[in-house]
Amino acid sequence: MTLNEKALALHEAWNGKLEITSKAPVNSREDLSLAYTPGVAEPCRHIAADPQKAYTYTMKANTVAVVSDGSAVLGLGNIGPLAALPVMEGKAVLFKEFGNVNAVPICLDTQDTVEIIRSVIALAPAFGGINLEDISAPRCFEIEERLQEALSIPVFHDDQHGTAIVVLAGIINALKIVKKEKEECKVVINGAGSAGIAIARLLHSYGFTSLLLCDKEGILYPNSDSLNWMQKKMALITNPENKTGDLKEALKGADIFVGVSAPGIVTKEMITSMNSKAIVFAMANPIPEIMPEEAKAGDAAVIGTGRSDYPNQVNNVLAFPGIFKGALEGRAQRITEEMKLAAAEAIAALVEDETLAEDFILPEPFDPRLSQVVAQAVKNHIPSGEIS
Amino acid sequence: MTLNEKALALHEAWNGKLEITSKAPVNSREDLSLAYTPGVAEPCRHIAADPQKAYTYTMKANTVAVVSDGSAVLGLGNIGPLAALPVMEGKAVLFKEFGNVNAVPICLDTQDTVEIIRSVIALAPAFGGINLEDISAPRCFEIEERLQEALSIPVFHDDQHGTAIVVLAGIINALKIVKKEKEECKVVINGAGSAGIAIARLLHSYGFTSLLLCDKEGILYPNSDSLNWMQKKMALITNPENKTGDLKEALKGADIFVGVSAPGIVTKEMITSMNSKAIVFAMANPIPEIMPEEAKAGDAAVIGTGRSDYPNQVNNVLAFPGIFKGALEGRAQRITEEMKLAAAEAIAALVEDETLAEDFILPEPFDPRLSQVVAQAVKNHIPSGEIS
Repeated sequence: MTLNEKALALHEAWNGKLEITSKAPVNSREDLSLAYTPGVAEPCRHIAADPQKAYTYTMKANTVAVVSDGSAVLGLGNIGPLAALPVMEGKAVLFKEFGNVNAVPICLDTQDTVEIIRSVIALAPAFGGINLEDISAPRCFEIEERLQEALSIPVFHDDQHGTAIVVLAGIINALKIVKKEKEECKVVINGAGSAGIAIARLLHSYGFTSLLLCDKEGILYPNSDSLNWMQKKMALITNPENKTGDLKEALKGADIFVGVSAPGIVTKEMITSMNSKAIVFAMANPIPEIMPEEAKAGDAAVIGTGRSDYPNQVNNVLAFPGIFKGALEGRAQRITEEMKLAAAEAIAALVEDETLAEDFILPEPFDPRLSQVVAQAVKNHIPSGEIS
Repeated sequence: MTLNEKALALHEAWNGKLEITSKAPVNSREDLSLAYTPGVAEPCRHIAADPQKAYTYTMKANTVAVVSDGSAVLGLGNIGPLAALPVMEGKAVLFKEFGNVNAVPICLDTQDTVEIIRSVIALAPAFGGINLEDISAPRCFEIEERLQEALSIPVFHDDQHGTAIVVLAGIINALKIVKKEKEECKVVINGAGSAGIAIARLLHSYGFTSLLLCDKEGILYPNSDSLNWMQKKMALITNPENKTGDLKEALKGADIFVGVSAPGIVTKEMITSMNSKAIVFAMANPIPEIMPEEAKAGDAAVIGTGRSDYPNQVNNVLAFPGIFKGALEGRAQRITEEMKLAAAEAIAALVEDETLAEDFILPEPFDPRLSQVVAQAVKNHIPSGEIS
């Protein structure tokens, strides 16, 4: 049986990967009168008088909605909300298993930006956070921003920030191996969709000053006509000099390559043209921008991919369960840039100096300390006025 | 500790009555690759090719949304969506415990009819059914009708139909005790909100021909100026002769009284004025239209209430878990009038002739046969072309 056949058979056997169970026993009339009418009216009255009490008496304390419109699902593209459901259920499984956070898949039957925003605002009351998932760029930027403005619970587009946090964690540790400082590194990011943009933003926040963002057309430059509003914004930040050129040009002398783009577009020669001790994260899935063997042959010092069958898998599951666990426990109203940076540092710090190696720059997803450590990093950065 | 104090303390300890757990193990990299990427792409592809496959590979097969806008919650009135959440969680608990149906509370942050309809349509893909809850009349009628037109999954407003089904079940058995035929009975329903209207509709469908619907102003008549569109529709059906009068007038010579209105508004004398062997369902909560002792003193033959501390509790939990269980198992696209009638008969039939008594006309909510029997009744009435 191939992996695909096995996955299909298991999904049929599961017939839905989630189960919604009761913490409240209902074995007697008294049980019923406590979990349901008439007793349930009492917490209702308390929440009506003080909405913050919802965190004491309801699921809002520890439940997030995993929201998608199915417009950019894995490598499958725009397959729509219903076909995206197995992925959202899988995400909810990871939330529970890795962060002990309850998560509800919400697949929206609309791909209109305004309708998505409206629908998520409407369904928000029962949830303590919103995880946006697999929504295509540039709509995802506006949707996230406007939802976060409208809601006082965290709104987090994991394809952007989860990826960026784990990439940064990996780079922090890779720099220790190649013994370079962030200030002296030239970074090239290929792919200017949700992940590429978010990685650029977070690396910039962290202190990388030389950053170039590329896409199919080459280096993004502010005067280009083909950029969306977010790409333009990022081009202004990363490339005010209006540098132009293709990826090959951009990579010459670069220290770090981060690919969230397309299979096989980077050659061994392009890696060789980079600065010595190059760091290469080739994360196109399932086939990377350059296979690790090739990158190694081109003399890359540290290599990461999105794959589980190579070392240094850059996997969002290292971040999002702990991020939301911490945000919910601390009742954060948003996930700030400081929290993301702290989460990346916390993930990186889980790899002790003794074990840190070019083939081991990121902790295992199954590291039992992971979600707790990330959650604590998030909680340490909740603005003090914000804790309710 | 009072019941309210105990309920509050328990809700604090539960901190949310639901837990969302995984059926898929994720203890190894292989597990991850099957429940999540890359394996999860395979069921996605199959659903993209054939949307019906969502019932094979996802939670849609056995999950309903419990949707409220918090506009008419228990006896608490319009307390809003957040304060309604403990009730919706409780409902989800009952769905699971009594019907083994997974249910997700959705509390909508809008009370605008059009916005509610729009939001529910948007969030529908992941769900196999929509249970509307605690939405005020007459908005609930339009919302339910328009959602059912727009969606090909069952949309069921439990305050209407769940109540009506259990009332009908109780009346079917009460008639056996008083040895009357439905065709010869005069029925008076007091309360013309969601439950009263739905009871009138279902009793009419069942074959009761003499029905009067009353509210605070007395008997509903078509020429009245104070009726909403649904009340007018029902007045035309039940009272084409434009009879007028107050509840006291209406009850004279009646065989059956069904109250879904206000505490203490029926007197012993009004019961005495009914036909002999009167059936009285006084379901205002927590204080009935007339207390059972009084109704008995007024010579009522069979008495039901909404309370668990008196015999013959008319409790929706007898119906809705089995209704949705059957609808989901049979992939019904809607809950038809025939299914409701069949469900009422199935509930009534669970009380065997030997146990049927004036103090025992409805099965216990804990009767282990209940949801299965109701589900089967629903499945028996799915239009044959509709099963996918």
